[in-house]
Amino acid sequence: MKEEIIYHIDQDVIELNNPVMIVGLPGVGHVGKLVADHMVEALDAKKIVDIYSEHFPPQVMVKEDSTVELVGNRLYLAKTDKMDLLILAGDSQSTDPAGHYRLCEIYIDFASQFKVNRIFTLGGYPTGVINAEDYVIGAVNNIDMIDELKEKNIQFSPSEPPGGIVGASGLILSFAKFRNIDAACLMGTTTGYIADPKSSKVLLGRLCDILGIEVNADALDEKIKDMDQIVEKIKDSVVGEDGEEYYEQAPASEEDLVYFG
Amino acid sequence: MKEEIIYHIDQDVIELNNPVMIVGLPGVGHVGKLVADHMVEALDAKKIVDIYSEHFPPQVMVKEDSTVELVGNRLYLAKTDKMDLLILAGDSQSTDPAGHYRLCEIYIDFASQFKVNRIFTLGGYPTGVINAEDYVIGAVNNIDMIDELKEKNIQFSPSEPPGGIVGASGLILSFAKFRNIDAACLMGTTTGYIADPKSSKVLLGRLCDILGIEVNADALDEKIKDMDQIVEKIKDSVVGEDGEEYYEQAPASEEDLVYFG
Amino acid sequence: MKEEIIYHIDQDVIELNNPVMIVGLPGVGHVGKLVADHMVEALDAKKIVDIYSEHFPPQVMVKEDSTVELVGNRLYLAKTDKMDLLILAGDSQSTDPAGHYRLCEIYIDFASQFKVNRIFTLGGYPTGVINAEDYVIGAVNNIDMIDELKEKNIQFSPSEPPGGIVGASGLILSFAKFRNIDAACLMGTTTGYIADPKSSKVLLGRLCDILGIEVNADALDEKIKDMDQIVEKIKDSVVGEDGEEYYEQAPASEEDLVYFG
Amino acid sequence: MKEEIIYHIDQDVIELNNPVMIVGLPGVGHVGKLVADHMVEALDAKKIVDIYSEHFPPQVMVKEDSTVELVGNRLYLAKTDKMDLLILAGDSQSTDPAGHYRLCEIYIDFASQFKVNRIFTLGGYPTGVINAEDYVIGAVNNIDMIDELKEKNIQFSPSEPPGGIVGASGLILSFAKFRNIDAACLMGTTTGYIADPKSSKVLLGRLCDILGIEVNADALDEKIKDMDQIVEKIKDSVVGEDGEEYYEQAPASEEDLVYFG
Repeated sequence: MKEEIIYHIDQDVIELNNPVMIVGLPGVGHVGKLVADHMVEALDAKKIVDIYSEHFPPQVMVKEDSTVELVGNRLYLAKTDKMDLLILAGDSQSTDPAGHYRLCEIYIDFASQFKVNRIFTLGGYPTGVINAEDYVIGAVNNIDMIDELKEKNIQFSPSEPPGGIVGASGLILSFAKFRNIDAACLMGTTTGYIADPKSSKVLLGRLCDILGIEVNADALDEKIKDMDQIVEKIKDSVVGEDGEEYYEQAPASEEDLVYFG
Repeated sequence: MKEEIIYHIDQDVIELNNPVMIVGLPGVGHVGKLVADHMVEALDAKKIVDIYSEHFPPQVMVKEDSTVELVGNRLYLAKTDKMDLLILAGDSQSTDPAGHYRLCEIYIDFASQFKVNRIFTLGGYPTGVINAEDYVIGAVNNIDMIDELKEKNIQFSPSEPPGGIVGASGLILSFAKFRNIDAACLMGTTTGYIADPKSSKVLLGRLCDILGIEVNADALDEKIKDMDQIVEKIKDSVVGEDGEEYYEQAPASEEDLVYFG
Repeated sequence: MKEEIIYHIDQDVIELNNPVMIVGLPGVGHVGKLVADHMVEALDAKKIVDIYSEHFPPQVMVKEDSTVELVGNRLYLAKTDKMDLLILAGDSQSTDPAGHYRLCEIYIDFASQFKVNRIFTLGGYPTGVINAEDYVIGAVNNIDMIDELKEKNIQFSPSEPPGGIVGASGLILSFAKFRNIDAACLMGTTTGYIADPKSSKVLLGRLCDILGIEVNADALDEKIKDMDQIVEKIKDSVVGEDGEEYYEQAPASEEDLVYFG
Repeated sequence: MKEEIIYHIDQDVIELNNPVMIVGLPGVGHVGKLVADHMVEALDAKKIVDIYSEHFPPQVMVKEDSTVELVGNRLYLAKTDKMDLLILAGDSQSTDPAGHYRLCEIYIDFASQFKVNRIFTLGGYPTGVINAEDYVIGAVNNIDMIDELKEKNIQFSPSEPPGGIVGASGLILSFAKFRNIDAACLMGTTTGYIADPKSSKVLLGRLCDILGIEVNADALDEKIKDMDQIVEKIKDSVVGEDGEEYYEQAPASEEDLVYFG
């Protein structure tokens, strides 16, 4: 099994209204994943495609009812008044570098097939600081998008993030450019130590503002309460020379993140 | 050599009676492997297929007579009154993530080819505790199996194991679902530190109960005696806050497991 | 996406005048990369090919204008009075061993296609010593090149470097030999701890001398000033038994190098 | 470049006299490599094939004359009165598990093509002890070979080495069995800490005895003198409970071995 794509819709006849693709996969602080998973629930999105691949971990998850589900990514369709949203969400990114390239080609093929107008990939931007300000950093594949996004309170700093953007959130921007699809990556600032629904809520707000839609955020508020309790417990933090609070330890790897999605 | 499948039977004409597949490959505590290896011996099963692959370690084992055997997995056939058992046993799982997917496709192809009705994959469930209770946790690919398995004293807890099931024991369940074959993973609880024939004996008992067959367990009792001696030696254990005994060190990697299979 | 090659020129009709290929990719002290990047700027070279590959990291870089650029290598054309230079520069080498072989075949295909007469691959030679003498070590794929290069002050020591030459700088020499193209690797001595524009300036001087061209080095001088400040800060060095200054720590991995290119 | 095989002979018409294949690639103590390299020189063997592969390290070696040589393996032909020897020697084994399988298929294809009667793969057997006795352990792919080899003073112990045989020395035995070619692996006992020409000399002696040929060992004696000096220097050894001398540190990885081949 190299890749297996299972359609739950008749993809040949489906006609979408002003389709926009939203990508929120696991990553720094799971900021993007939390937004995408939340939108799927809050907008009652319908799963239209399952994507499995040998580039994902060789693993099944066990659901609440004790049935298993193969690790994979999923494409959901959420219909709103203004537009149809294709939301790409899932359990994992590629386990190997080449797999990122191969999976992102699959993702961008969906964008082409469903004739999406724009793509927004969602991610986190690690700052190491606990009380990060509530802002969202952007990067684009078409310089013409910047003015519009700035008006919606997206920050653009030269060459930020300095290490570039790793994984699907970045590759999809470049792959979309090869197909002449406008795409932006929106990154919520986060500590980088734990899953961060607070940052996700900020990011969701900005995204809704850009799209001109509304999404109820109650479920994220629940997660924020849980997060605050965890942060209280682990607050063996130190105050850095710049007056900011830092965790004492190095940033956790993606796998170590406490994820309560 | 990508994969090499060597048949020792005429697979085109073989007709099996109510075939059930049992999968017991190396894993946590080698609980599943010990059961499968034991069943092969106790039921005098006949090797019908050798499976070699570049996804296994590049290694030969040396047998007692100083001849070598390429690392691989093997499919055995054991005939009982009630059913024919196809037992998948072997030396190793894949060395790389993608290999798990490719090998499990081979395994499930055998299940299809031999028209098996059900698959039971056997594994261990690490608890970190020495005196684990004698229970077996289950996960299924078809919710209809749960009631029957509960009656046979298999435990089901929501979303357990929390990290999902890694490797062949998990993938086979999902791949079987794609082919409409009912499959369950049965996991014996074990410390996760050493090969655990005690847990294997419990698991074997449950499996026999489910299948309605009997398998002599004397050889496992021998291994349990050996294990008890080893445990006595390394019992520099501490009593945890919950009153349970824990080993002082972190769980060993799969390779470090003392395996006396 | 295995490999994607994007031409910005009509490669079928392009005629080059005495073409020579220069290869300067990331490596020890980024000595070669700094030279190639500098030559592209100083000679106002024109990008003629973009090379993308799944063997590069799955990553985009963010440019000053907040647009993204997929990690890759690039082939530039610089026209001088004496010759046309094809300069191969870029962000990364392969992330996996096999990828080096596959990418270097692409590079050598360009050399064949553009009928280059000679190839110079540029790299660093780690000495562990801060005040390395200003010399450049060479290795060739054709023994006839040695006398000429010695006249230009390139050093040749038997079997040096002792560990061979890893990555594109080495492979290209052997691959060029298979196509009967003369090629030499020129390695500037460097500490191996930090990006080293000083060594790059020495290497650039030798290369210009060999080619018989002149390249303004002002921009490298700027980088050297920056480097000197960094070195002052980290000079917690010790004096070894041989009177040389050594850093106290083990050489940094390529990724840890402070790169200010 | 996946694999590149360069013949230096007309392989279609070559007729060999009673051909036997000897395999001595890098491994534990470089015992096998030292024997094969020595035989190539002492018997004035002629290189007949170069084998390059992306499964080898992406690296060139620099020769004494400052020309480079791509890392690879080589097949040599040495003619003796009694038989023709095909000696497989080289710089490296595969860098990845799957590559071992693919390369060994190439090696066994040569054995088939040149109609070799028998294969002897040479390796080291790590004991951790400095003053290892002078014995050589064997494993075979055909039980009928054991009596003959025992007569030539090869030791056979049940299931030894306990961890099996990793890499080409082992795989070739199983692959040869698939082609009905008798093959044995002969392992010289060695500390596992440094390259061990002493063990190689013992192994060479046994091999010559089996083949019924003579090979001058003077060059190995030179290497043994060098080794003895090194051992004197590093003899910060301790005497273990069993009265044997052990090095204080854990066995070095293959890469760390002091190799003076």
